[in-house]
Amino acid sequence: MNIDILTLFPEMFASPFDSSIIKRARDKNIVQINTYNIRGFSRNKHHTVDDTPFGGGVGMVMHAEPVFEAVEKLKNSNESKSRIILMCPQGMTFTQGYAKELAQEERLIFICGHYEGIDDRVREHLVTDEISVGDFVLTGGEIPVMVLVDAVVRLIPGVLGDKASAEEDSFYNGLLEYPHYTRPRNYKGCEVPEILLSGHHENIRKWRLRQSLLRTLAGRPDLFKEKLLTAEEKKLLKEIHADLAEILNT
Amino acid sequence: MNIDILTLFPEMFASPFDSSIIKRARDKNIVQINTYNIRGFSRNKHHTVDDTPFGGGVGMVMHAEPVFEAVEKLKNSNESKSRIILMCPQGMTFTQGYAKELAQEERLIFICGHYEGIDDRVREHLVTDEISVGDFVLTGGEIPVMVLVDAVVRLIPGVLGDKASAEEDSFYNGLLEYPHYTRPRNYKGCEVPEILLSGHHENIRKWRLRQSLLRTLAGRPDLFKEKLLTAEEKKLLKEIHADLAEILNT
Repeated sequence: MNIDILTLFPEMFASPFDSSIIKRARDKNIVQINTYNIRGFSRNKHHTVDDTPFGGGVGMVMHAEPVFEAVEKLKNSNESKSRIILMCPQGMTFTQGYAKELAQEERLIFICGHYEGIDDRVREHLVTDEISVGDFVLTGGEIPVMVLVDAVVRLIPGVLGDKASAEEDSFYNGLLEYPHYTRPRNYKGCEVPEILLSGHHENIRKWRLRQSLLRTLAGRPDLFKEKLLTAEEKKLLKEIHADLAEILNT
Repeated sequence: MNIDILTLFPEMFASPFDSSIIKRARDKNIVQINTYNIRGFSRNKHHTVDDTPFGGGVGMVMHAEPVFEAVEKLKNSNESKSRIILMCPQGMTFTQGYAKELAQEERLIFICGHYEGIDDRVREHLVTDEISVGDFVLTGGEIPVMVLVDAVVRLIPGVLGDKASAEEDSFYNGLLEYPHYTRPRNYKGCEVPEILLSGHHENIRKWRLRQSLLRTLAGRPDLFKEKLLTAEEKKLLKEIHADLAEILNT
């Protein structure tokens, strides 16, 4: 996969993209990531990239022109169809489903806004996807792009050593993850749940699924609306339901 | 504000925290950010920080002990009450409201998980807040912490040059932002909306509010559920409603 990032702060990406899974994916040449400074595509003599907004108001607005120029240049040098993604609060909220979709692409071009915003003609006429990472205000699109790149790259086959690792992660089956424990068994009086030491794999699997269901019920009941329950999940939920009825009746 | 970050990858934070608004806030000494390698708090001789999960399964689980040790050490050296925040998918979803709340604190301690997860006793007995940035799977808590730090730091008084900048941003008044435009008026045939060139400030203000309402209606109608509408916003929505009725009647 080829990832191009258009930004006013290319230096921000240096350390996050040189660590952990993203570094590994780059080292294996599974993904090529390039950052470009939008300033380099400004045609005016002072290489300015922003200006005051039409209609007045505080802050500065990024020019459309250097962004259009940059994308045209990048597309010329590679004719494959590209997703051109603008990080902005108005966009579709990023989800694991979206990450899986983007992981299928050969080429992603990200545009990071900054300052008050970016001339709206970029949004109207250039981008294919507008994506938001959540309902909060950030200084620019750079950190959101790191979020997307991490989420997408780890889904590309060959990036994670153990394929099962990606598939067992939270949200992969639409539920929150069960709790994990490792040595020591007793840490300052806090014991690991007994069942995990039993060696009975089938019981452990069921306990974990039940924990996932209960955690989702506790923390993110909204996830059940979008999830197709398996027969086993339904059965466990019925058991929990029956347990509750018993508690209420006594 | 004092921000401490416990992580297995402290080097990841170097470039994002040395750029833009976060750098400015650090240079002004409004915020002090320190990263600590959890590995440094491991007491075993090989400084291992993870182990296989009790009950079996793929992946590794981070030990509870070095995380407890690190937090205890950090708290000793500063007796003020701390928020201890674990980044994890089970957590409360991060929002602008949460950012405003955290911006009031004097001290934040972040714990970044990694690998399959972190021994659940950390979550049960150590942390005060579990926060998720969204419904997607990331490699670790490092990039989510960057998201939170950026969102929180820019809300601390004195960080943004222009106070109005933070307040006019998207989501600040519960609506998506209106579109911005800057020079040139015409870029490759795409014109800036006429009204923004009119010089009539009151009309421009109303147009922008109307655009914000329409954008929110188009992209994030769910935001209206949580928002208290002002009298003017209600009036504009009624006008839009009347316009629609007219279109439907003709």
